[in-house]
Amino acid sequence: MIAYDVFGMSHFDALNHALTTIATGGFSTHDASFGYFDSYALRWIATFFMTVCSLPFSILIVFFIKGRLDALRDPQILVFLGYLSAFAVSAALYNHLRNGVDLPLALSHSFFNFASILSTTGYASEDYTMWGPFAVAAAFFATFMGGCSGSTAGGIKAYRFVIIFNIIVTGLKRLIYPNAVYSVRYGNQIVDADTQRAVFLFFSAYIFIWVIGSLAMALAGYDFATASSAVITALSNVGPGIGSLIGPAGNFATMHDPELYILSLAMLLGRLEVLTVMVLLVPIFWRS
Amino acid sequence: MIAYDVFGMSHFDALNHALTTIATGGFSTHDASFGYFDSYALRWIATFFMTVCSLPFSILIVFFIKGRLDALRDPQILVFLGYLSAFAVSAALYNHLRNGVDLPLALSHSFFNFASILSTTGYASEDYTMWGPFAVAAAFFATFMGGCSGSTAGGIKAYRFVIIFNIIVTGLKRLIYPNAVYSVRYGNQIVDADTQRAVFLFFSAYIFIWVIGSLAMALAGYDFATASSAVITALSNVGPGIGSLIGPAGNFATMHDPELYILSLAMLLGRLEVLTVMVLLVPIFWRS
Repeated sequence: MIAYDVFGMSHFDALNHALTTIATGGFSTHDASFGYFDSYALRWIATFFMTVCSLPFSILIVFFIKGRLDALRDPQILVFLGYLSAFAVSAALYNHLRNGVDLPLALSHSFFNFASILSTTGYASEDYTMWGPFAVAAAFFATFMGGCSGSTAGGIKAYRFVIIFNIIVTGLKRLIYPNAVYSVRYGNQIVDADTQRAVFLFFSAYIFIWVIGSLAMALAGYDFATASSAVITALSNVGPGIGSLIGPAGNFATMHDPELYILSLAMLLGRLEVLTVMVLLVPIFWRS
Repeated sequence: MIAYDVFGMSHFDALNHALTTIATGGFSTHDASFGYFDSYALRWIATFFMTVCSLPFSILIVFFIKGRLDALRDPQILVFLGYLSAFAVSAALYNHLRNGVDLPLALSHSFFNFASILSTTGYASEDYTMWGPFAVAAAFFATFMGGCSGSTAGGIKAYRFVIIFNIIVTGLKRLIYPNAVYSVRYGNQIVDADTQRAVFLFFSAYIFIWVIGSLAMALAGYDFATASSAVITALSNVGPGIGSLIGPAGNFATMHDPELYILSLAMLLGRLEVLTVMVLLVPIFWRS
């Protein structure tokens, strides 16, 4: 709040935006969202805090209280910062080369908006879907990914990607040496079969909910990009989708009740980490 | 070939279309693909053979030679016929109710085109993306799914969906009774941990290749629907995508070398079942 205030927001805006930055919520007091504040400093301040608030809180506590830098070596932190940087830098270079936007400006918007999507905050500093098709596709897929576990961010989350990646690599190694013993690892820890199964369960359930939701939204009349991005942006609790209607410059105001119920259900499913709600669909849950 | 010939194709067309129906290949001797033959009978004949050729060949042999009907009880056959019917009936009803197309006509086109997509044949009897957004989304997601294992069909394949579904259900039951022992089953058989892992490996690798390929196609300048459907239709060896350029009424002729290389790689990856190619990326494969 102090940083926002010092760098030019009104006290009221600084308070509101600080609250929705730290909570990775994304409500803004302005229709143009963060685009209202055309300021490098404010964009980078927001980018920094959205990123920090997508890291596991327990590790932040260890870091800030005990000053132990090695706490930051959790693999999901490196992976999260890695894919944030990959998305942001590639989209900025694309915007710079394709549209001739100055690189520092392109970088500040790109880092801001991808930090916003990946932290599932949902601010927008400008309509990044106008940068071109690559930015649209990158924003779409980033909406699935999310932040780290133990933060307020939604999405599939970085630690699951670490485990999925290691399952794939270990599986490929097993194909080469079928009799060798390879363990799936998370940093120095061995990931047991139950955890692997839980990750798979979550990942596949997430994909299937997205598919079913997208079909339902298409049935309600929305084109493919709008239908599929509406469901994933709801499921991951991000905010903007792609396409002119619900993109970063649009909103969901024109949608009707059935669609809003579908997306509300997706938001709840996503916020409750999917499985806790899906358990209600299993008949044995309701027995005595 | 005889059936095609009897119901109105020229001898030459009957031979060619019989070959590419049985092989679930999809080449037609006409630019309009199967749309050239505006015939109920031919559409249903093609639908029947595309569907039969998406079933496991070993089971077809047992059925035809030994006449054992119980061979057809393989769970993936029921699941494949189930999702084929679900897609085809819902899209036909949609086309009937939204566009006023006669139900028998709508059903024959819908079964034909979804059998074509799910068997990864790739024929089109008309531009089903004009039926409306639901048909587009259904065609898109059907492109991922494919036929049964042990057939010439590509895609993720029905037996993997059976196993994924059972992993999800078993996982949800375990959440309710953490100490109960639930096995993941495929029909009457228990699916061991290695097979579950292999299914997960394939499924997640498939999704990631699609994501990376779609980003590459978007970088080459294609809109989201074209980029993402081009990659999945190549990876699943189907043929048509969605969108006006590469939809069932379009083709890939206007694409340039880089995109064609990307899609060629995707076709190879898909036809070789992904993992056999990905193994080449693991450093230990190249040691001695």
